[in-house]
Amino acid sequence: MTDGTQRLRVTRVRGESAAADDDVIVTEEPLEIRVGERALSVTMRTPGHDFELAAGFLVTEGVIASRDEVESIRHWGSPNVVRVTLCDGVRLDWERLHRHTYAASSCGVCGKTSIDAVRVHTAPLNSDVRVSSTLIHHLPDLLRESQSAFALTGAIHAAGAFTRDGARICVREDVGRHNAVDKVIGAMLAEGTRADVMVVSGRAGFEVVQKCAVGRIPVLAAVGAPSSLAVDLARELHLTLLGFVRDGRFNVYSAEERLSYASS
Amino acid sequence: MTDGTQRLRVTRVRGESAAADDDVIVTEEPLEIRVGERALSVTMRTPGHDFELAAGFLVTEGVIASRDEVESIRHWGSPNVVRVTLCDGVRLDWERLHRHTYAASSCGVCGKTSIDAVRVHTAPLNSDVRVSSTLIHHLPDLLRESQSAFALTGAIHAAGAFTRDGARICVREDVGRHNAVDKVIGAMLAEGTRADVMVVSGRAGFEVVQKCAVGRIPVLAAVGAPSSLAVDLARELHLTLLGFVRDGRFNVYSAEERLSYASS
Repeated sequence: MTDGTQRLRVTRVRGESAAADDDVIVTEEPLEIRVGERALSVTMRTPGHDFELAAGFLVTEGVIASRDEVESIRHWGSPNVVRVTLCDGVRLDWERLHRHTYAASSCGVCGKTSIDAVRVHTAPLNSDVRVSSTLIHHLPDLLRESQSAFALTGAIHAAGAFTRDGARICVREDVGRHNAVDKVIGAMLAEGTRADVMVVSGRAGFEVVQKCAVGRIPVLAAVGAPSSLAVDLARELHLTLLGFVRDGRFNVYSAEERLSYASS
Repeated sequence: MTDGTQRLRVTRVRGESAAADDDVIVTEEPLEIRVGERALSVTMRTPGHDFELAAGFLVTEGVIASRDEVESIRHWGSPNVVRVTLCDGVRLDWERLHRHTYAASSCGVCGKTSIDAVRVHTAPLNSDVRVSSTLIHHLPDLLRESQSAFALTGAIHAAGAFTRDGARICVREDVGRHNAVDKVIGAMLAEGTRADVMVVSGRAGFEVVQKCAVGRIPVLAAVGAPSSLAVDLARELHLTLLGFVRDGRFNVYSAEERLSYASS
């Protein structure tokens, strides 16, 4: 954790062959920022330089006017909680306190509390769908076929929902990758459609995994990398999480039994 | 705006030569999501499919349990405001209401209001620093030299502050790109250092521009693309915004007078 990465066991798929291997992923954990007695924000971050993050966040979000208003910053009961003490007489801009913030009304003594604040209750996925590795390899192309020419420049995020047969349910683009996923799930909810696989053009963090789980999509394929907390949540909720899906390869981080290989 | 992009005039730099040209950038605007009388969230999104975004957001963030709890979703006084009306008897999970949300206590009738909610007050940048295009071309390398081998896989974001001479002030990495910028600015605040240029490994959205402006860094160079609102804010605050800084090229979106070219 000290260098912001974690080692874990994954399955590496190349073409139709799969083999267990070690992989390194980036650590993602919630940081609760407290000002005095009050829990102000929980942000998903890579541990390290937490005091700088807290100070930078408070200033650039306009919560305080300058670093000089801070008397001290220290960890508080957990490596995932920092407590900022302001100088005597400093007044907070309370209007700003909820910008980007998670509800953090609980005691905040441990990291568990912070995680609770960002968790949406949802049941584990029990779908027994099988998805072929051949389809997984094709997903980036299927997503690209639905994107605008502009999107292909990489300036915008895309998310797409597909069936196990590769039929497109819905593809959406947005400047924000969480928004692209929300638009896809919102469209499926409105139309009453279901999908077996969600593919995203970027990385898979905790929140993208959570959104897929709440949307009851059992397989998430990311063109980019997953984070540690994304893997943890996918394993807990039994969601099949695939990363680095590109160029005929991908890694399997959880619930591999939903995958089938042409060679087996 | 209808296809989520905007055309604008930029300066394209290749090597040491610069020429005016048209460019297309992704539209980023705030969407205020209201539930009944209450402004619940402002999210930065690409306009389009806003009702799906609102429904998907409410469900995947756990604010409501299912789409069936929604009676209607419609625009409300502005294309940047949607109002969700819940079915009779549906109770909100108020604990969830501030997840990811901006303070949105104002009336919410127009897009301007939403922008006000996400704006941090800061003065325009009046630095008369000059930065050479030669340095700009080198910034991605300077950033990479400070990153870990793991970071080079693209699994993590990086931000770095440098002087006009290319001296490194601070480089930080994080799973979240806003966090990487906050860590850099937080470190500079703690050490009392100043920088002329911030370089980020990814895209430049509204918030990254705002954080640089509040941190009083006059030049922002992004390896990826800027958004429309990022360009608008950079022009308003007179911050020099550069995008697609890679492979000996970049685009200038604002405040070009801080750039100098070896050929001129």
